[in-house]
Amino acid sequence: MFVTRKAEFSASHVCRVPSLSDQENQQLYGEGANPNGHGHNYLLEVTVEGDPDPATGMVINLQALKEILLREVVEPMDHRFLNYEVEPFHKVVPTPENIAGEIWRRLENNLQGLPARLARVRLYETPDHHVDIVRGDLSL
Amino acid sequence: MFVTRKAEFSASHVCRVPSLSDQENQQLYGEGANPNGHGHNYLLEVTVEGDPDPATGMVINLQALKEILLREVVEPMDHRFLNYEVEPFHKVVPTPENIAGEIWRRLENNLQGLPARLARVRLYETPDHHVDIVRGDLSL
Amino acid sequence: MFVTRKAEFSASHVCRVPSLSDQENQQLYGEGANPNGHGHNYLLEVTVEGDPDPATGMVINLQALKEILLREVVEPMDHRFLNYEVEPFHKVVPTPENIAGEIWRRLENNLQGLPARLARVRLYETPDHHVDIVRGDLSL
Amino acid sequence: MFVTRKAEFSASHVCRVPSLSDQENQQLYGEGANPNGHGHNYLLEVTVEGDPDPATGMVINLQALKEILLREVVEPMDHRFLNYEVEPFHKVVPTPENIAGEIWRRLENNLQGLPARLARVRLYETPDHHVDIVRGDLSL
Amino acid sequence: MFVTRKAEFSASHVCRVPSLSDQENQQLYGEGANPNGHGHNYLLEVTVEGDPDPATGMVINLQALKEILLREVVEPMDHRFLNYEVEPFHKVVPTPENIAGEIWRRLENNLQGLPARLARVRLYETPDHHVDIVRGDLSL
Amino acid sequence: MFVTRKAEFSASHVCRVPSLSDQENQQLYGEGANPNGHGHNYLLEVTVEGDPDPATGMVINLQALKEILLREVVEPMDHRFLNYEVEPFHKVVPTPENIAGEIWRRLENNLQGLPARLARVRLYETPDHHVDIVRGDLSL
Repeated sequence: MFVTRKAEFSASHVCRVPSLSDQENQQLYGEGANPNGHGHNYLLEVTVEGDPDPATGMVINLQALKEILLREVVEPMDHRFLNYEVEPFHKVVPTPENIAGEIWRRLENNLQGLPARLARVRLYETPDHHVDIVRGDLSL
Repeated sequence: MFVTRKAEFSASHVCRVPSLSDQENQQLYGEGANPNGHGHNYLLEVTVEGDPDPATGMVINLQALKEILLREVVEPMDHRFLNYEVEPFHKVVPTPENIAGEIWRRLENNLQGLPARLARVRLYETPDHHVDIVRGDLSL
Repeated sequence: MFVTRKAEFSASHVCRVPSLSDQENQQLYGEGANPNGHGHNYLLEVTVEGDPDPATGMVINLQALKEILLREVVEPMDHRFLNYEVEPFHKVVPTPENIAGEIWRRLENNLQGLPARLARVRLYETPDHHVDIVRGDLSL
Repeated sequence: MFVTRKAEFSASHVCRVPSLSDQENQQLYGEGANPNGHGHNYLLEVTVEGDPDPATGMVINLQALKEILLREVVEPMDHRFLNYEVEPFHKVVPTPENIAGEIWRRLENNLQGLPARLARVRLYETPDHHVDIVRGDLSL
Repeated sequence: MFVTRKAEFSASHVCRVPSLSDQENQQLYGEGANPNGHGHNYLLEVTVEGDPDPATGMVINLQALKEILLREVVEPMDHRFLNYEVEPFHKVVPTPENIAGEIWRRLENNLQGLPARLARVRLYETPDHHVDIVRGDLSL
Repeated sequence: MFVTRKAEFSASHVCRVPSLSDQENQQLYGEGANPNGHGHNYLLEVTVEGDPDPATGMVINLQALKEILLREVVEPMDHRFLNYEVEPFHKVVPTPENIAGEIWRRLENNLQGLPARLARVRLYETPDHHVDIVRGDLSL
């Protein structure tokens, strides 16, 4: 069984590869390459997988999951300029793919010891564009 | 191919394990353990899987699916206090995990004979929190 | 200028007039008259009106507004059975009209001294059904 | 990793099997069999799968994906009467299952040569009813 | 106090003034002038205004309002081609402005005798485009 | 009658009054005072008011309205850092109140000569927080 919890954070980012020209960056990222940066209301959906405890009927203590999300993702990323204030984005381009990858790493480390494992990280950059990371032995 | 249909019902529930203390229940379920109960607008998404009929272009008669959802889930659960009025929640804690499990059982029994099989039950307790049950040989 | 802030709470209620018969209550409130109660995820939108401060560019300190909403509405009503746990609903039917009226009274009292006045309280009982209270000298 | 992009188009359709009677069509498609046609705001979600390029942090150039969606699906189908103006729906019933199938074929042909493969086509006919086509070796 | 109820219908329409050329119609209505027609999921919000009854706490019997909406608007317009099947659109262009006007007339006639008067008709043609008709002595 | 059109833009901003201390800015704007900036997906709803043309059934040519929105608001503000790239925000704090005010001025100037006048500008900074500017002789 899967349990999904949503969270939101508002942040700025710039998408540029420093070794490329302005024109090449524009071709890759469109307006997202503007060096002054722009921002989004990111919507995050985190899914964990496990069996409901027969006594409590819960896969995971939801309060514990919310606290991990808040501490590991929302607090460090909300109202930040990702390239300048959140690791590893001073040297990794903060595309939604890479932001989702970093969120996956932060959450997986912190879910150790809980009775559910991370199954999917979905990150919406806008309502029309999102990415999913799914555990290797799961599908979409 | 998968076909998904949504339905909604508004219900009350209490999440408490009778053998545990007030404090333990509060730790497990937070405010959800309040013995007077509270309620939600539950949003249900039911997905069935099958091949479209070459003549009709449909996996399943949508009208038939809607009637099963209405008869088996919405009518018995809408505007009810789940712990007191809907089986098996007088003795099973009506967490979203357990409500989704009960919906799966009711639907699977009633889809026998139709040309599609139940693939996923997704239940939103709030827009920020949902659970999924997925057929064993499917993934998320 | 108007500033609107949303908040949510999940609660149970029963809609019944004690002096009426079961059949009369059913005619008035439909399934909402079920004496065991049922529940909703209530969505509240509170609008205040004022002029932006020329120095700060804000009509009202949003943090102050959020705290009033939390203290006066969300904390006392969230995860409660309104008829039994929230005044004045032990003797006033908690229809969305009456809940919105009570929220208006609680907020208006608490916005005294802030540089904006309450302009509208909108309460969604479901996504398909909401009520608005608007200051007498305003329109919809 | 999966990347999903949304698009919308507004179109008319009629769902009827010519060899069947009015009554049989009504039983299959309900009001959707009305020979004058009716319409929808179709919402399309297209998901591609691939590995993010280590240099750019992107699975696919989003601008390229948007152009394919626009050219192959939105422009030919938006503001059209599908049965009369879009192939193959002069002879194939434009159920959501069949429309999604046609979108899958158009996109898969046009994604050749890009570094990501089509993983899922999701098509909403209304907010309450959608279909999914998922690559054979993926699950839901 | 205002009470709002939502309803939906799916319909086809063509926007063309017969006395104008193809090019002039295209300039006025864009792709909406396609003579084959296209369609939408129309979302309707109907608002009535009145004082809550002190005994029942309701402005209007919601069940009565739903029945009027269903009988006067949803049933005659849902799954129809408006220009051919719904009066007065054989001779009046079914723009959202004109459809909302027709809905206003149908509802106002049928709310006579109920303790609330029609205050606003809001009609969404798409999520990005809607129109409002508001009673003359009310504002937005 | 009122016609409303939505548009979106993604931008960065910082909310700080230069003459105030860090602590005072933090008290006014919370995390929004972070000098590196943060960002949002801004959702804009623009409402115009007028009478439908009896021949065309339209209050305003929607294509003309969309072009004004695009040229005056979306193109200059989308993917920009408002404080550094959009006038007058190098010296005016880009709170939602002030951004909406600037949008009102840009639109009102550009709607001259069209058969409808600006009635309301609504700007969502997040789904939970928005502001409205309404023409002086209109209400909410």
